[in-house]
Amino acid sequence: MSNFPPSLRQIAFFLERLPGIGEKTANRLAFFFLHLPERDLKEFASYVSQLKTKIKLCHICLNVTEKDVCDICSDPKRDKHIITVVEEVLDLISFETGDIYQGVYHVLHGKIDPLNHIAPEDIHIDDLLDRVEKEKKSVREIILATNPDMEGEATAMFIRNKLKELKKNLKLTFSITRLGYGLPIGANLEYADYMTLRKAIENRNKY
Amino acid sequence: MSNFPPSLRQIAFFLERLPGIGEKTANRLAFFFLHLPERDLKEFASYVSQLKTKIKLCHICLNVTEKDVCDICSDPKRDKHIITVVEEVLDLISFETGDIYQGVYHVLHGKIDPLNHIAPEDIHIDDLLDRVEKEKKSVREIILATNPDMEGEATAMFIRNKLKELKKNLKLTFSITRLGYGLPIGANLEYADYMTLRKAIENRNKY
Repeated sequence: MSNFPPSLRQIAFFLERLPGIGEKTANRLAFFFLHLPERDLKEFASYVSQLKTKIKLCHICLNVTEKDVCDICSDPKRDKHIITVVEEVLDLISFETGDIYQGVYHVLHGKIDPLNHIAPEDIHIDDLLDRVEKEKKSVREIILATNPDMEGEATAMFIRNKLKELKKNLKLTFSITRLGYGLPIGANLEYADYMTLRKAIENRNKY
Repeated sequence: MSNFPPSLRQIAFFLERLPGIGEKTANRLAFFFLHLPERDLKEFASYVSQLKTKIKLCHICLNVTEKDVCDICSDPKRDKHIITVVEEVLDLISFETGDIYQGVYHVLHGKIDPLNHIAPEDIHIDDLLDRVEKEKKSVREIILATNPDMEGEATAMFIRNKLKELKKNLKLTFSITRLGYGLPIGANLEYADYMTLRKAIENRNKY
């Protein structure tokens, strides 16, 4: 990369910081920039430089938005009684790509991860509890949709306990659920790991 | 992506146009931009928007540069008598990452590819011939380092014939060589394709 002209080198350096992009790919991508129309590059550059000033977190669910309240929370067709708790905005996006869920969300922006020094107070769990306390009887169900890995399970468990306390103290009646786990659609039993198979057996259904 | 705020969506759209980056990766990368310091984003943006005005092609070898003549051509330590002909600047970068070659280059910016309507006059072959004609006796060797695929071989063959003509007409004495082909270092015979094996047999050395 030392043979790149400075401006190309700087672009490659920046791209190399992105996740999953190594030096070779960064070089290749930086070069590809040269083949794009100048107008598109300038437009992209203006979006990048304004990104941080434009993007805020939704006051209600902490999704990213350019307004005070995100499109999902301000959509009158969404069911405000069901809140799905996800780790990251990208998890929310996964639910939203299919037309599979009509409720609203709460984004934690992280998961409890003691090995990386991320404690419960470092992610937005308190905001969730405040929200439930404020919305009170209007909340009917909270779906815990953290990832099915060690940190995700610990986070779900921690939130469940906090919510149960809140339910008891405020005499609320919402239910707490966790996403169903088992074999993914199209999976091959031969390649399934035993943790997934155990979940698939535990969660078996009458047929 | 329709659930992204506009500025994030625009960034993801742009990234999706880059080679090897699909929708999911583009989304993930756009999100990662949010985690970077604003100063770095603005710096990156300024490099991107100025890229096309800053970058030019070296007058001698057509490498990318911000000056009139690139760092390699203006380096007094490089051997100007040997010219390696490559398809793309990234090929040149590959040679330059190791300290393996001390000569100079000529970048074709493409290869002859009739199926994609790229004729010899669409790439910088004439510039190479002009250069050799101008430098005359100072050229001692031209290494044809186009890729060992069908178009690369056709390009090498075309250039070889043109150079031979030039040699004859101008009574020049430079030699024309082609990169050596065979098994790559660390290769496994079991997985080698027969074309590579054929080259490895043809190019076998006394041992």
